[in-house]
Amino acid sequence: MSQTAAFDSIRSGLIPFFRLPQAESDFEGFRAVLLGVPWDGGTAHQPGARFAPVHVRRVSATMQSYNPLARADVLRKVAAADGGNVPVSPFNPGLMREVTETAIGQVLAAGAVPLVVGGDHSVALPCLRAAARKHGPLAVVHVDAHLDTSGREPWGDPYHHGTPVRHALEEGLIERGQLFQLGIRASWADANESALVTKHAGHIYTMEDIAVDGVAALMTHIRHEVGKRPVYLTFDVSGVDPAFAPGTGTPIPGGLSSREALELVRGLRGLRMVGADVVEVLPALDHADLTSHLAAHVLFEALGALAAQ
Amino acid sequence: MSQTAAFDSIRSGLIPFFRLPQAESDFEGFRAVLLGVPWDGGTAHQPGARFAPVHVRRVSATMQSYNPLARADVLRKVAAADGGNVPVSPFNPGLMREVTETAIGQVLAAGAVPLVVGGDHSVALPCLRAAARKHGPLAVVHVDAHLDTSGREPWGDPYHHGTPVRHALEEGLIERGQLFQLGIRASWADANESALVTKHAGHIYTMEDIAVDGVAALMTHIRHEVGKRPVYLTFDVSGVDPAFAPGTGTPIPGGLSSREALELVRGLRGLRMVGADVVEVLPALDHADLTSHLAAHVLFEALGALAAQ
Amino acid sequence: MSQTAAFDSIRSGLIPFFRLPQAESDFEGFRAVLLGVPWDGGTAHQPGARFAPVHVRRVSATMQSYNPLARADVLRKVAAADGGNVPVSPFNPGLMREVTETAIGQVLAAGAVPLVVGGDHSVALPCLRAAARKHGPLAVVHVDAHLDTSGREPWGDPYHHGTPVRHALEEGLIERGQLFQLGIRASWADANESALVTKHAGHIYTMEDIAVDGVAALMTHIRHEVGKRPVYLTFDVSGVDPAFAPGTGTPIPGGLSSREALELVRGLRGLRMVGADVVEVLPALDHADLTSHLAAHVLFEALGALAAQ
Amino acid sequence: MSQTAAFDSIRSGLIPFFRLPQAESDFEGFRAVLLGVPWDGGTAHQPGARFAPVHVRRVSATMQSYNPLARADVLRKVAAADGGNVPVSPFNPGLMREVTETAIGQVLAAGAVPLVVGGDHSVALPCLRAAARKHGPLAVVHVDAHLDTSGREPWGDPYHHGTPVRHALEEGLIERGQLFQLGIRASWADANESALVTKHAGHIYTMEDIAVDGVAALMTHIRHEVGKRPVYLTFDVSGVDPAFAPGTGTPIPGGLSSREALELVRGLRGLRMVGADVVEVLPALDHADLTSHLAAHVLFEALGALAAQ
Amino acid sequence: MSQTAAFDSIRSGLIPFFRLPQAESDFEGFRAVLLGVPWDGGTAHQPGARFAPVHVRRVSATMQSYNPLARADVLRKVAAADGGNVPVSPFNPGLMREVTETAIGQVLAAGAVPLVVGGDHSVALPCLRAAARKHGPLAVVHVDAHLDTSGREPWGDPYHHGTPVRHALEEGLIERGQLFQLGIRASWADANESALVTKHAGHIYTMEDIAVDGVAALMTHIRHEVGKRPVYLTFDVSGVDPAFAPGTGTPIPGGLSSREALELVRGLRGLRMVGADVVEVLPALDHADLTSHLAAHVLFEALGALAAQ
Amino acid sequence: MSQTAAFDSIRSGLIPFFRLPQAESDFEGFRAVLLGVPWDGGTAHQPGARFAPVHVRRVSATMQSYNPLARADVLRKVAAADGGNVPVSPFNPGLMREVTETAIGQVLAAGAVPLVVGGDHSVALPCLRAAARKHGPLAVVHVDAHLDTSGREPWGDPYHHGTPVRHALEEGLIERGQLFQLGIRASWADANESALVTKHAGHIYTMEDIAVDGVAALMTHIRHEVGKRPVYLTFDVSGVDPAFAPGTGTPIPGGLSSREALELVRGLRGLRMVGADVVEVLPALDHADLTSHLAAHVLFEALGALAAQ
Repeated sequence: MSQTAAFDSIRSGLIPFFRLPQAESDFEGFRAVLLGVPWDGGTAHQPGARFAPVHVRRVSATMQSYNPLARADVLRKVAAADGGNVPVSPFNPGLMREVTETAIGQVLAAGAVPLVVGGDHSVALPCLRAAARKHGPLAVVHVDAHLDTSGREPWGDPYHHGTPVRHALEEGLIERGQLFQLGIRASWADANESALVTKHAGHIYTMEDIAVDGVAALMTHIRHEVGKRPVYLTFDVSGVDPAFAPGTGTPIPGGLSSREALELVRGLRGLRMVGADVVEVLPALDHADLTSHLAAHVLFEALGALAAQ
Repeated sequence: MSQTAAFDSIRSGLIPFFRLPQAESDFEGFRAVLLGVPWDGGTAHQPGARFAPVHVRRVSATMQSYNPLARADVLRKVAAADGGNVPVSPFNPGLMREVTETAIGQVLAAGAVPLVVGGDHSVALPCLRAAARKHGPLAVVHVDAHLDTSGREPWGDPYHHGTPVRHALEEGLIERGQLFQLGIRASWADANESALVTKHAGHIYTMEDIAVDGVAALMTHIRHEVGKRPVYLTFDVSGVDPAFAPGTGTPIPGGLSSREALELVRGLRGLRMVGADVVEVLPALDHADLTSHLAAHVLFEALGALAAQ
Repeated sequence: MSQTAAFDSIRSGLIPFFRLPQAESDFEGFRAVLLGVPWDGGTAHQPGARFAPVHVRRVSATMQSYNPLARADVLRKVAAADGGNVPVSPFNPGLMREVTETAIGQVLAAGAVPLVVGGDHSVALPCLRAAARKHGPLAVVHVDAHLDTSGREPWGDPYHHGTPVRHALEEGLIERGQLFQLGIRASWADANESALVTKHAGHIYTMEDIAVDGVAALMTHIRHEVGKRPVYLTFDVSGVDPAFAPGTGTPIPGGLSSREALELVRGLRGLRMVGADVVEVLPALDHADLTSHLAAHVLFEALGALAAQ
Repeated sequence: MSQTAAFDSIRSGLIPFFRLPQAESDFEGFRAVLLGVPWDGGTAHQPGARFAPVHVRRVSATMQSYNPLARADVLRKVAAADGGNVPVSPFNPGLMREVTETAIGQVLAAGAVPLVVGGDHSVALPCLRAAARKHGPLAVVHVDAHLDTSGREPWGDPYHHGTPVRHALEEGLIERGQLFQLGIRASWADANESALVTKHAGHIYTMEDIAVDGVAALMTHIRHEVGKRPVYLTFDVSGVDPAFAPGTGTPIPGGLSSREALELVRGLRGLRMVGADVVEVLPALDHADLTSHLAAHVLFEALGALAAQ
Repeated sequence: MSQTAAFDSIRSGLIPFFRLPQAESDFEGFRAVLLGVPWDGGTAHQPGARFAPVHVRRVSATMQSYNPLARADVLRKVAAADGGNVPVSPFNPGLMREVTETAIGQVLAAGAVPLVVGGDHSVALPCLRAAARKHGPLAVVHVDAHLDTSGREPWGDPYHHGTPVRHALEEGLIERGQLFQLGIRASWADANESALVTKHAGHIYTMEDIAVDGVAALMTHIRHEVGKRPVYLTFDVSGVDPAFAPGTGTPIPGGLSSREALELVRGLRGLRMVGADVVEVLPALDHADLTSHLAAHVLFEALGALAAQ
Repeated sequence: MSQTAAFDSIRSGLIPFFRLPQAESDFEGFRAVLLGVPWDGGTAHQPGARFAPVHVRRVSATMQSYNPLARADVLRKVAAADGGNVPVSPFNPGLMREVTETAIGQVLAAGAVPLVVGGDHSVALPCLRAAARKHGPLAVVHVDAHLDTSGREPWGDPYHHGTPVRHALEEGLIERGQLFQLGIRASWADANESALVTKHAGHIYTMEDIAVDGVAALMTHIRHEVGKRPVYLTFDVSGVDPAFAPGTGTPIPGGLSSREALELVRGLRGLRMVGADVVEVLPALDHADLTSHLAAHVLFEALGALAAQ
């Protein structure tokens, strides 16, 4: 590994994402602000994603500025800051949505792009709300094993980590025809589970579709479809195969390789990315920090996509 | 994840495969019966596969009916039951073979297809015997890193987890030319290790062959070769790369990805599948339940292949 | 290990606590009913205790009837059943309290003693409510590293796993002078943290007290104090040292050994135990199932205490 | 750590127990010979102890000659050798008993004391047979959570890891009144489980007895009882609490601490020890090699007891 | 757990020890300064302790001010700061000693007490040098399984983690008769290994001594011996049994329990403690963060001892 | 698995690579000699690779002679020996380089090809020096996530695991235009990080290049470029994706699959391979021995490449 990064990562016990400067509330002058949302109160199966921000920060400290695959000097080109964690209570989902939307709004108001580390997937909804409030209906690239369009049944609760896409569609946060779901493969309750996405003219790319077409071609297609629209990336690590991302609450075999996952995010270059999140990293099951490393690289590629704008 | 499945899987401490109905002895009316054979007394290296049935049941409880890759409402279309575990003693291989053959025979007699979770690979022999007794010589699709055609040497014991294919060939359970071995890559004692398979005109597809031809093309070929014959799937998780299936007794690098593995089983659609097993899942080494999840998905795809008949 | 238990535990994939009969709603004729409450929505730090019931059931299946330390044929003497899991939603703490109180009430109404496996410690409150509704104010033996008398601050939520003792005291569920807290050692916000317990004349035995007096003497003392009162045991595994109970959300060094913990529960013999719970077992961190085994033995000793009445 | 041991242990990939000389068949001139018996075919629950010899060898390589607790220069005082592993087949329990008895007999014939690393507890029977053949009925110190006096039921097999003490008693390998069982605490099928031991006037010290009397006093008592008789130590690591020995197939909370366990073996000093075994170490579950380290120290203390003769 | 601590620990990705204020170079006004020394270049066996500071910081964030065992409001009473990590290179042992001695000297010069988290035990030497430079020859309480008095053989290097006590004695950093070594039990090269300590009239308390006398009595004795001398605590977690401290490079069974370990540190109350270190925490092997939690509690008790001065 | 290998691997506690004959100093008559270099003193981030040789030996013992993918009877065709470990001190990098260069020189002098298991990547430099001394400037195939061309900054040390390629280039050990780096993807300090390689006309194949061209085509190209030159393979397991090789100190997502990695090494067939190393295997993080198994297979394929010469 490169020495400087290793040196810093060993030396410090207080580690911001990528050893970036910290910015608690004044985000002016930054092109991107990374935030943690340590919330897993929306987890239907295995909780624990609240600890992802501290571990992703820790492993990201070994990374450096230049991405040889994207041929971009990312961290030098994109002025980025670590904005700390959004102060959520583990017991109050409404408060989480409120303070997260506020925090993301502050980043956006400063003209910066928010990059969020969850937390479970329910943190995406307030992020999407804030982004749509600023930019209008969004194009959304959604990497996941699941559609995340669940409804109120059977928990009786309309908000949890299986529902953000439903709310985003129903609240008009996503432009018609501009939802792109990649990595879909988990079993559904029935064939109608995709009805909501279809109704909004969304695009579902199952792992079968990805196997046939390849990530590069799909991303070219998506870039053309999105065009100049503001685009938001919501990246659930369950989209990646559990061999590459074992630390997650609902592992589903047959997913993206880490190479495909990073190529996918790199494929957003040239688009007008207005926000991104990486969610569902579960450190308690994350052997050898594999999933935290992957999440850090997803953020790095997202920063690279900003660098390429 | 979908809520209903998560709800049930959290709620219950008593978990049948896929939350199916339980059927202890009366299998009438079921199209498929899933059974555990908690036996690892045939393991030459790392034992512990006896605990696979309980863990595969546990993780399978999060799965639902519809397979979006196969576009099939599997669990609704195939009436399936959990038939419990075959009552084996850990010390009596002969008894294991006897009670397993009997149990599989009962499932077959009821007109149902047995889907077995081992246990080590030696549980496949009594399954094949029961199936061949009912249907005559079989076509066999065998996923594995090893040929499993070992003889009596050097243990002095003719029956263990390296021998089921030898016995199946020698006992005439497999029709000449109808053995298809996929995923082969573990080192052999010498070049003659494939002689028995060659003698019976069996087909060996090494990982090199799979890399060149691809799983889809190979399965198309196999479907044509098999035609209307009764076909049995014996799936040793060592056929899959240990990155995707770390919980197994003899991990061999360079195997199938989980995507290829599931595509392979999905490739059995349209064939007359008369039985299947998934063997060599070793929970003690199965970080984050990866291999149990994979095994559950192999069963799900096998049920999907039944749904497609 | 004894064979019968091993045989059954291997054979079955569907494992009730101690291989007991299952009883879904009709608890008549049973002296004790074991229930799971798969709830961890009250966890302030590391969640995941919702999975404890399935794992405690699994490991308890290797245990047999006779306790050679208590010299009692426990499972034969106490007619016990597995009452399944209480159907909670992971997102609704009020519903959890409601359905748990109802379920415990049904067990008590049938004349049986409920033994509950959490879940986090917030499941204790509805159990205590149901028990006090039936029996009046209770004596409570509380094993824990923490006092669990937290208030609304700082989460803004009055109900979570750090508060059950506060509510139980304030709601009058515990008789004045009849709270016995053992294993206390975690750091407090300040010296006043014990004020509520003191106000209700409760007894705090820190690990220092236990080191000085020994468990046997303390339990003798407690038995005298409790006398013929109805007594409820709430056992948070954090009371035990993390060496013996690594699978828990807030490990605190310096706790009880497993031997002391089991001796403590055995020390309840002769008392009129009307209910018990074992909470905060976190399977995701439970290397080699140590904590699940310990929880199963705590239940076994609690059943033994019933046997000795 | 001491340098020499660390140096050698890092330097070598080929590690005998304690870096002792190897002796394949000629044991003349050695006071003690350490042997592995990589057998777990007698395991009723979690198998895998066949891998214990390689891991105990590995960790033992960091140890040096002088024991500061026993104040003895053990490895210099006792000429010891690594006799390799007994060549067993994983499928042939009869062969295991035969070759193990032969190997132990050869060690004894050379005038050396055999120290055996199992394998599961069924390896103790052929060791006891060989020792009794040479020395006549033995005194036996048996550390275990279980009595190991099971019979043929329910497996239908008279020989497995729950039966060695039954056979040793019934075959007259143990002198009447000279069986000392320590650490007993696992649940029994019923109160009669101790009948066989009682019939042979054996001594059962449960963990309760040990808690009351202490290891030192018990060992003094046992030394007096044994006197000048030939004594054999059979040490099942399940006697130790799973906090200290997590790597074992049937962990039972409430056992010996490692300090007590080593004190117990040290308490054999002055006795005429004619053989010993350490069994049921299960590397697959042995976090941070804790149990292998413990087993190596048990061997070291046993060698120390020889040094003190 | 208490809420505030949990809240803060979840909320923040940037965690100082005990959530203390950070102080990079100006230590005036602080009574204690905690520092990390991420160095493991002196490790003869299993390296990796360089990562201890980040993990001990992480787990310490859940702790609060008041210690109910010591009945002291520790963090309020002792003004303490996190001084960050000493900037060491992993390849330069001389530089490590130099910058560590300088950093400790700066803390001492400001009138504060340094509390150091290693790193391996070779970080103790520069700490002792700085403390002795300031205070003159010290009393040293040394918790360890090993004597750490190794010499140049066999590595040919005079400075590594087995040598700090040798250098401290030979350099006159420790007052004659004022070395107290507790927890000693690892095997020695030969009986002379204690000669150096004896020559300097040091005190070796093996685990046998501790078992006989108990920690409380020993610490009373040590307090009397030390009197008003400046005392330094060097705490190698290998002094603790690996059941309680599995995350360390040379685990030795038979050590202190965590309760004894904390009681030992608490026993320093009333002494004039001028510095302390906790070393040899190895996160890579630290299941469920047990050893990091223990180290944090050792620091907390050391702060408590300062509070009691 | 094949029986003989399993039999031997269980039977023996003293395991040479592939159960080969051992040769301590006389290498005459061998075509290949495998050596361990247990050194990790050059590790900038997570150390521990010093333990790789013992674990790679252990898992390699289950492998047999014939490689069905290469269709070669490898171990019979190539007379190979286990030459033991090179005796390094963990504290002396200069000595490591000296004794390693000497040991490799002895193997080469005997006309054998050295195959080395590190240790960290700094062991490659003395190997390259010895090989170039014998054969003149080499062609080098370098598999890695990193370029390993770091300079003196920032550690102030010119020799560590990020520098071997720099030294090899600057010392003229590699022929101009004959450096082939594959798997490159880790972030760089800046765009100039590749300047040194470019200056020496080296070839950098990033993972993007490999994704586009495929391993087979690249290796064909490299074989043509290398021609009859002496070629050395230095294989850092970080070149492989951490899903397949989790046990390494600096895991970087997006790497080679194990299948590609083995195909890559197999692609050296026909070349004049004069040496090889496999480095950076870190057993402490190597779940289920995945990375050790991979390393053993890399060695096996390297032996196969020798067999094909």
